[in-house]
Amino acid sequence: MNLDAQWIVGFVDGEGCFHVGINPHAEMTAGFQVLPEFTVVQHERDVHVLHALKAHFGCGVVRRNHGDRLAYRVRSQQHLQRIIIPFFVRHPLKTRKHVDFLKFRDVLQLMESGVHLTAAGIDEIRAVATQMNRGATR
Amino acid sequence: MNLDAQWIVGFVDGEGCFHVGINPHAEMTAGFQVLPEFTVVQHERDVHVLHALKAHFGCGVVRRNHGDRLAYRVRSQQHLQRIIIPFFVRHPLKTRKHVDFLKFRDVLQLMESGVHLTAAGIDEIRAVATQMNRGATR
Repeated sequence: MNLDAQWIVGFVDGEGCFHVGINPHAEMTAGFQVLPEFTVVQHERDVHVLHALKAHFGCGVVRRNHGDRLAYRVRSQQHLQRIIIPFFVRHPLKTRKHVDFLKFRDVLQLMESGVHLTAAGIDEIRAVATQMNRGATR
Repeated sequence: MNLDAQWIVGFVDGEGCFHVGINPHAEMTAGFQVLPEFTVVQHERDVHVLHALKAHFGCGVVRRNHGDRLAYRVRSQQHLQRIIIPFFVRHPLKTRKHVDFLKFRDVLQLMESGVHLTAAGIDEIRAVATQMNRGATR
């Protein structure tokens, strides 16, 4: 199944999620680990679409999410920076998810400069991340 | 906002719904009214996308659905037959929603031949409609 770039944008406008997790982590100097991820969740009957996304981007994994839902997920910082972010810069989202995407990109840029390895940097990232997915209904 | 056809397909694969309501109705000879509708529901923050769909198709309405959700909705049999159905025949959906769409089209074709005005026709339409949206999770 070949996916048109605009089909992907429309589908991600509906079903995609840009998320930045900030989790306590004893081994990190700043005490926290920053986990940005791009996901698209679908019922298992449409797993073929998730595999088509994975094939299109050439990165990420398809994994069971919970129950009968599966997720296409990209967590690698390098793949997010080099593949996912440039795609949505070239092909902008049309819903308010675009605003989440811009903040997601900001977080990735902060991480590239190593900011997430300091306590002050974690605060800075947290300030951006808490503005994301506000008013999200799922 | 101009919408690319493939963006619309992707968005409807995620957020669209083809539904056939069969409601008791005293004034109809067969005792039931068949109400096919195509809807796309969004949080009110993305109402601009619903208006862009309405502008693209040149039919339908944008109405409050419930709470902070709004819906783009096409109920006119003529608009469904002449605008919505031909669009998704030219630009097929990629998820299992495509199967719902084909059954939706079958119901509209049955209605065009007047089948829904007889009790036997209602049974025939109900048989098709009950196969739609099975396993839907919302």
